Amino acid sequence: MTDPEELAAKVREGELRIHELEEHADHDTAAEARRLYVERETGTDLESIGDYTFPAERAEPNIENMIGAAQIPMGVVGPVDVNGEETSSNGSGGAADGEHYLPLATTEGALLASVNRGLGVIRTAGGADARVTKNGMTRAPVFRVTGVAEAAETVEWVTDNFDALAEAAESTTSHGELLDIEPYVVGDSVYLRFAYDTKDAMGMNMATIATGEACEIVESETPASLVALSGNLCSDKKPAAINAVEGRGRSVTADVLIPGELVEERLHTTADAIAEANTRKNLTGSAKAGSLGFNAHAANVVAAAFLATGQDEAQVVEAANTITTMDARQREDGTSDLYASVSLASLEVGTVGGGTKLPTQSEALEILGLRGGGEPAGSNADALAEIIAVGALAGELSLLAALASRHLASAHEDLGR
Amino acid sequence: MTDPEELAAKVREGELRIHELEEHADHDTAAEARRLYVERETGTDLESIGDYTFPAERAEPNIENMIGAAQIPMGVVGPVDVNGEETSSNGSGGAADGEHYLPLATTEGALLASVNRGLGVIRTAGGADARVTKNGMTRAPVFRVTGVAEAAETVEWVTDNFDALAEAAESTTSHGELLDIEPYVVGDSVYLRFAYDTKDAMGMNMATIATGEACEIVESETPASLVALSGNLCSDKKPAAINAVEGRGRSVTADVLIPGELVEERLHTTADAIAEANTRKNLTGSAKAGSLGFNAHAANVVAAAFLATGQDEAQVVEAANTITTMDARQREDGTSDLYASVSLASLEVGTVGGGTKLPTQSEALEILGLRGGGEPAGSNADALAEIIAVGALAGELSLLAALASRHLASAHEDLGR
Amino acid sequence: MTDPEELAAKVREGELRIHELEEHADHDTAAEARRLYVERETGTDLESIGDYTFPAERAEPNIENMIGAAQIPMGVVGPVDVNGEETSSNGSGGAADGEHYLPLATTEGALLASVNRGLGVIRTAGGADARVTKNGMTRAPVFRVTGVAEAAETVEWVTDNFDALAEAAESTTSHGELLDIEPYVVGDSVYLRFAYDTKDAMGMNMATIATGEACEIVESETPASLVALSGNLCSDKKPAAINAVEGRGRSVTADVLIPGELVEERLHTTADAIAEANTRKNLTGSAKAGSLGFNAHAANVVAAAFLATGQDEAQVVEAANTITTMDARQREDGTSDLYASVSLASLEVGTVGGGTKLPTQSEALEILGLRGGGEPAGSNADALAEIIAVGALAGELSLLAALASRHLASAHEDLGR
Amino acid sequence: MTDPEELAAKVREGELRIHELEEHADHDTAAEARRLYVERETGTDLESIGDYTFPAERAEPNIENMIGAAQIPMGVVGPVDVNGEETSSNGSGGAADGEHYLPLATTEGALLASVNRGLGVIRTAGGADARVTKNGMTRAPVFRVTGVAEAAETVEWVTDNFDALAEAAESTTSHGELLDIEPYVVGDSVYLRFAYDTKDAMGMNMATIATGEACEIVESETPASLVALSGNLCSDKKPAAINAVEGRGRSVTADVLIPGELVEERLHTTADAIAEANTRKNLTGSAKAGSLGFNAHAANVVAAAFLATGQDEAQVVEAANTITTMDARQREDGTSDLYASVSLASLEVGTVGGGTKLPTQSEALEILGLRGGGEPAGSNADALAEIIAVGALAGELSLLAALASRHLASAHEDLGR
Repeated sequence: MTDPEELAAKVREGELRIHELEEHADHDTAAEARRLYVERETGTDLESIGDYTFPAERAEPNIENMIGAAQIPMGVVGPVDVNGEETSSNGSGGAADGEHYLPLATTEGALLASVNRGLGVIRTAGGADARVTKNGMTRAPVFRVTGVAEAAETVEWVTDNFDALAEAAESTTSHGELLDIEPYVVGDSVYLRFAYDTKDAMGMNMATIATGEACEIVESETPASLVALSGNLCSDKKPAAINAVEGRGRSVTADVLIPGELVEERLHTTADAIAEANTRKNLTGSAKAGSLGFNAHAANVVAAAFLATGQDEAQVVEAANTITTMDARQREDGTSDLYASVSLASLEVGTVGGGTKLPTQSEALEILGLRGGGEPAGSNADALAEIIAVGALAGELSLLAALASRHLASAHEDLGR
Repeated sequence: MTDPEELAAKVREGELRIHELEEHADHDTAAEARRLYVERETGTDLESIGDYTFPAERAEPNIENMIGAAQIPMGVVGPVDVNGEETSSNGSGGAADGEHYLPLATTEGALLASVNRGLGVIRTAGGADARVTKNGMTRAPVFRVTGVAEAAETVEWVTDNFDALAEAAESTTSHGELLDIEPYVVGDSVYLRFAYDTKDAMGMNMATIATGEACEIVESETPASLVALSGNLCSDKKPAAINAVEGRGRSVTADVLIPGELVEERLHTTADAIAEANTRKNLTGSAKAGSLGFNAHAANVVAAAFLATGQDEAQVVEAANTITTMDARQREDGTSDLYASVSLASLEVGTVGGGTKLPTQSEALEILGLRGGGEPAGSNADALAEIIAVGALAGELSLLAALASRHLASAHEDLGR
Repeated sequence: MTDPEELAAKVREGELRIHELEEHADHDTAAEARRLYVERETGTDLESIGDYTFPAERAEPNIENMIGAAQIPMGVVGPVDVNGEETSSNGSGGAADGEHYLPLATTEGALLASVNRGLGVIRTAGGADARVTKNGMTRAPVFRVTGVAEAAETVEWVTDNFDALAEAAESTTSHGELLDIEPYVVGDSVYLRFAYDTKDAMGMNMATIATGEACEIVESETPASLVALSGNLCSDKKPAAINAVEGRGRSVTADVLIPGELVEERLHTTADAIAEANTRKNLTGSAKAGSLGFNAHAANVVAAAFLATGQDEAQVVEAANTITTMDARQREDGTSDLYASVSLASLEVGTVGGGTKLPTQSEALEILGLRGGGEPAGSNADALAEIIAVGALAGELSLLAALASRHLASAHEDLGR
Repeated sequence: MTDPEELAAKVREGELRIHELEEHADHDTAAEARRLYVERETGTDLESIGDYTFPAERAEPNIENMIGAAQIPMGVVGPVDVNGEETSSNGSGGAADGEHYLPLATTEGALLASVNRGLGVIRTAGGADARVTKNGMTRAPVFRVTGVAEAAETVEWVTDNFDALAEAAESTTSHGELLDIEPYVVGDSVYLRFAYDTKDAMGMNMATIATGEACEIVESETPASLVALSGNLCSDKKPAAINAVEGRGRSVTADVLIPGELVEERLHTTADAIAEANTRKNLTGSAKAGSLGFNAHAANVVAAAFLATGQDEAQVVEAANTITTMDARQREDGTSDLYASVSLASLEVGTVGGGTKLPTQSEALEILGLRGGGEPAGSNADALAEIIAVGALAGELSLLAALASRHLASAHEDLGR
């Protein structure tokens, strides 16, 4: 039965349920049938949604009840100029190097123009540095114990038996490595925050499966009973200090030093004015707001890069845990250069798995030269994190400069009165 | 000159800059030229990205440097059953009513299936209640004063002159209403948090423009000088307590009471087990994580609904400020029903403006019956907020039940040993 | 029966309980008996604890089971020089004016010396400005409703009936005024944050009693049932963003502009060095720590002032919600002055009630000229808040300068190598 | 010159400065002279403040500019019944055991009575369990680097050279052990959070001195320059998530299981009613308040115990990072017992150093049997932490029960209508 009209009719008549269509037809036909059904039920015409241009089957790991696709405009900014060469004798270089066009998908007008302006200034300044300073995808199950005595006993056992737990966890994955288990006790609940190096995968699923395996040992060897594989100390897609402080996924930071002349010529303001705006807005303003995000709009750039490259869109939440600093560095001649940095505490990215395999997303990763696993493993995801960080840096620079120059302009008007 | 190859060559030769192409060709040709240029520069084939199916011109307000589109799989869940009828004599009813299919665009497999399961249970339970309990889009400029004496003077002036500021602000908009100006002082910085009823628009731009107009009066009548139109007490796209506590956009809450039998039959667990998992994970776990989000994965549902309906994807950040509660309500016969709720403090949504006019997004809003302005103004955005909240509730229910039932299952195994 | 030995014996023999002694003897004898009992039980000699020098009866409202007193060393710093004269035509002057010695009780060596150094610099700079920018003691009961529909109904009723609730609340107090009721909804819980002007009292009890009265009306007129008179949105003695953002008790800010020469002569460093230390430590460091306190050690000064003047010691928690800013303000001649400020969001102080009536505490308030109610009502507590703020400012200045000068010193050594 | 009148006159005439008096007379005379001076300047009579009963010299390490003492009423509660026996084969027992009277100094009426009521219930229930689950006093200096490349290099060096840094740090102390150095990067700032086992000392000074020594090595071996010995990631006396999540000083948790009958007889309510009040107030209410403290009034008990035993009063700030849980545990017969716990993430206590040597404070520690160093080292401070935790637990129990029973009472009245 591959006639979508017929299938839609069967759904309408209650003979088939809406999620069962793929059992009776190929994926595209099933999607069409579902679309037909919804069109009739809601009196709509879903032509555009139905006008997707990939085989529906390729989206099977990514969606259920498919009716088509959302088409989000995509553009490019750049090149993003990253200085990835090794900068120290001990080898702490960056993973990304050279110039990369960065694809961004968004519906927010002016975003790409703004980021692009910032990237141009960064290029003229000789490029940005970027480093992944920490890496660990986390999953934190919660266990029930009878009370604090058992909690202490459980924590002690876990601490003493890291190797056994690592062996169990790593038996479920060919790539992942267990880096750490951090225990937290609250009354009769014990939380164990497992952290993994998941290489080029964002790694949430890998971490979950591996942790599940380790939990079985914890349950069999201690008095603790598993209540939930995620106890929210992970913390996935929640605005949590634990991520902002300790990181999740990649902790990545990027910076650039922009000569004073360049600030004036291209950004039409001064290092001092930008630094002031950053301090009053991003530092003091965020402080007063009780915020975990001390930036102007880092989430904008991250969200657009995530959409383009097939990342988990809801993890924009953690990406917003970003601190932006802008300082005027005085030179000997009395003029000032602008030092600007962004530090994203918890950027969860991958170049394999998840949405990265979908056609448009896969092509977007190709633009960056980062599709699939890196060599060595993990280097592609590192590089993606670094490039997104430089994109975010460009966005911060551009917006802060706009604020500062507008202010300077009005200051000039004031003087002109 | 409308040959994309020629245009791409000009970019390559430095005669044209990448963002200038729309000046020399129609939007689709410009996008093609840009794509050709990027393909050559990066050695890629961007066929899928180029395979978008809307006139590029329609995306002009939404993107610069367009090369095509990201196609994100879209499905539907539902129907979402919302009891919107007025439930009290004084008229505090909900804006959404009846059954609605909710379109979701995502790359996270199993999400729609999970939400759909939760929605089925909610329907069988008679539907969910949902209410927008607060509404106000905010913009908070920061001003420089010489010190606290001037700060106090400025705050006093602003408090005394709300009407004049409202008049100025509202002169820039046909729909927006200024609701409140909340002042905050930190040393020589004064922040004024303007809150607007922006009706069916998400309203960020409206609020910014209106606030800019009001700022001119503040600058001319007080000693305060504007430093930045946004001083981060707004707070846009940052994980800030001010939004979690005071709200931004819509504060919306949804709940349902599920009979114990239904919990057992359909969710294969008990109200007590779900309540326990929620308390240990969403309440205590989030507490220990220093979180502003006390939920399991509300951001997942919101992100997918935002993508489908053309909302600002980066505002998923604020949407994650959600508290989920689950309680076992004991009945006289000793059995327990499950009370479940979600409260989204800061859900920023609109049915006009932004990405809502793009073809697939517009159709998604039509599925909901909420495209364009509502009658009365604001009711469509209210209803969208309520439906998304019920979707998030379904997602929470489904995930918590899965955790609790898996646990129950393993508990049963334990007993069997 | 007024022989303490006999009373102690009766406690030992189980004939009397330890808290019943005041029923059988005067307060000093009861305390002695209790001390004797504890000495025997624990094999200790509590001579010093018993060597208090006030009539035990005066402590009756402050303690139960008294055995004596803790003696905390008290010193003075100052004078604290506050410029309280009206500085604007519209009268937003400060409550404190002129020079005041500030008594501090502490066991932390070097604290008074440090604060004193800062105060000396402030005096030479012409004194500090200080302003109470917000005032409101809060109490937030939590109510149970059946769900969000009732929650919305309750909130609407409360908003519509502010006057009736104010009348009820104010019927319980001769001084307090209800300023505001802010409603918050989380599922089936409704929180109402009542804010009062409690004049010269810290006002926690006043606010609790008044709110209790208002709650009866809420319960009788709406479907809501009171669960707890405090629902933690108050929020008393907890580190809560709601206090840091919206304030509790007095929001008070103090600042000073210190000429560059003075920074060099007296603090042995420069405005730039202090500003850098403040930015990296108090702003960026606190940001990374997920903190609500962006200061160096404001709590030290507040705790010592609270102890000396009979404030509620546990409310040091809220006092720590302080933001310190330090900026170099460039002069025309190229040199820089130092602008320094502290903004305490939630400083809960009173000059009547609580511990303020005890002998040593009462004398400490007399040193400040602030014992008892002010004229107009509230002005004494305002002035106390302002003076403590200037004390905190001095502590911040002194510590930051010490850090910066040590750094400068070692920088000089570096150059010397 | 030992005549206080003469000394006071010299201060008045400007011949001596107020802090120089100890150079010209013994400490008591100096304090008297200073008091005389202040009395004349402020027109006050400081008889009570001057009526302290310890040799002023003993307070020399604790105060400057002494004029006398604050006398804070002290009482006792208890006994505090702690089950410290080893409860597991691997030895994770508690440090405190048996019954202890707990001295509390406060001016908040009803506090001791409330705690005492809770302690009585705990005793009848067989005592509470308490465990220190983590221990580490922290100090986190901030360093300046040129940018993220140097930051990464510095972090790498520090990680690779833990042993050398530990050796340097530990060379400054006979007891302290360096446990960990956690690096954090924000742009061109590097923060290193050093954590020490400081045994029976609270350890702030020990940690500072040891860290200072280690910093010299960091400065000489890496490009990093020290800006401030404390960069606020420590974080001392600030309401910071890093402490609430990762702990500072002792992380200590205490709990008790109270039979349902006992809840009814002694607390006049039910486990269910208490659990409900705790969930709506301490969990959900604190969640909505953006709080790091999920408790009712833990800071009250801690502040009073700190004052009595000579702890650093300003560190009540961190003590407030406490989570209280209360659950009804159903028995087979259908009735419910009450499980109650408190988890204090960051309780900074010591039994040596600081204010612990002052006469009344020292006696208070003797009441607890915990004066001076423990055997093994650290066990006295551990035990103090555990006993204070049980005190806090009692306070939480008592207050929550009061709220719940009042509610039950009014519920009964409702039924009676």
